[in-house]
Amino acid sequence: MSSLIERARDRGASAVGWREVPSDDPMIGQDMSRGWDDRQERTRAEVLAAVGDIVAADGLDGLTMRKLAERAGVAVATLYSQFDDRDGVLVAFVSNGLDQLEKELDEQPAAGPIDTTRALFVGLDQTIGATVDVWRPVLAAVKSGPGIDSMGAVGDRIVNSIENDLAKAAADGMFIAECDTGRLARHLFMQRMHILERWAHGSIDWDQYRTMSDLSVELSLAAVLIDPYREQAVRSVGIIR
Amino acid sequence: MSSLIERARDRGASAVGWREVPSDDPMIGQDMSRGWDDRQERTRAEVLAAVGDIVAADGLDGLTMRKLAERAGVAVATLYSQFDDRDGVLVAFVSNGLDQLEKELDEQPAAGPIDTTRALFVGLDQTIGATVDVWRPVLAAVKSGPGIDSMGAVGDRIVNSIENDLAKAAADGMFIAECDTGRLARHLFMQRMHILERWAHGSIDWDQYRTMSDLSVELSLAAVLIDPYREQAVRSVGIIR
Repeated sequence: MSSLIERARDRGASAVGWREVPSDDPMIGQDMSRGWDDRQERTRAEVLAAVGDIVAADGLDGLTMRKLAERAGVAVATLYSQFDDRDGVLVAFVSNGLDQLEKELDEQPAAGPIDTTRALFVGLDQTIGATVDVWRPVLAAVKSGPGIDSMGAVGDRIVNSIENDLAKAAADGMFIAECDTGRLARHLFMQRMHILERWAHGSIDWDQYRTMSDLSVELSLAAVLIDPYREQAVRSVGIIR
Repeated sequence: MSSLIERARDRGASAVGWREVPSDDPMIGQDMSRGWDDRQERTRAEVLAAVGDIVAADGLDGLTMRKLAERAGVAVATLYSQFDDRDGVLVAFVSNGLDQLEKELDEQPAAGPIDTTRALFVGLDQTIGATVDVWRPVLAAVKSGPGIDSMGAVGDRIVNSIENDLAKAAADGMFIAECDTGRLARHLFMQRMHILERWAHGSIDWDQYRTMSDLSVELSLAAVLIDPYREQAVRSVGIIR
């Protein structure tokens, strides 16, 4: 079996192509595709780590597909086949960061409804805040491409996490009436992304981003929370004295 | 007296320089400076109208200080002395638009508290929506310069209008507790400007800007409004069914 995988690798089969290779034994097909996926996953992780290293050292201008391939120890052709182009690399970098965030949150002890959403945003800020020199230019560049809105699957998963949390809050009777939790969840996420984008572009500094974002989140939540949750939310951001 | 003014004009005295000319009779100084201000105001209006014409016809790339001077019928040196640089022209264009908006709102019949703030935002959208081909590139360009945040005096005046309206709402007992109306007013304005900036940069379309902005405003207001105002606000944007 391992020789089959090796042969496939030698042929440079793409993951999609590989999965299409017919096999009489469905188990063999599954194992082979898993092995290939693992390898792709490792390559991807190495490439994305290299993105961070290069941008931290030389800024975003220093990030070329050639330099990235060299640093990650992969062929330039592999980069293009996995990420399409440099923009695709940046989108993957951001998606990967949000992915990591999701995993970390899953490993945290469960908080109550609403507090889970707050923890998610704190985690997001910590992820980005830890390496602002990398995230800032990357987020600014991604924006001119596909945009933070189109963080696609990962963005959707974060919105889903928030929506699940809001649904729990609804089940616990924390809202004034039946809410469109999906719409509210999406708004909370998008609103924060807008302000983050302004930080990435240098319109506001990191502290302003944090203050404005927290204000937006707490006011949006307070709009539908019953007391004492509403009052706590509004008071926490200093709108009520 | 008129000859004095004309001589000052011939000398090309700046408004600031002119006001510094000492006079024994304070009334003469006042009249002279008013005459000069009127003329500057006319020049300014002509220049800003020309900005709109040029950007509508040739896009923002077509807007050069030379072409602008030609179109407005003023000397290039006058442009530089009044606006510092091209960025200064763009900031003045935006400020002027917001100025006009303020005047229009002053002429409207008085609405109740909160509704006045809503009318202000509707007016803003109408101002920009009427000539999106001009506003969009201008707002996008201004951002990379001093930023919408620094709309300075005009931005402050709009925030003050909102704050006055919120103070009336507070006096009418529409809020759940004593609010920091200044902070809330600033947040309402800034939040909308953020989303507007994203539209200017092409991240979202006009309808998305409208929907997101209205959602942000209504949720922020609902956070502190008592019922039935709170419920009306949240229901109007479809968060509560």
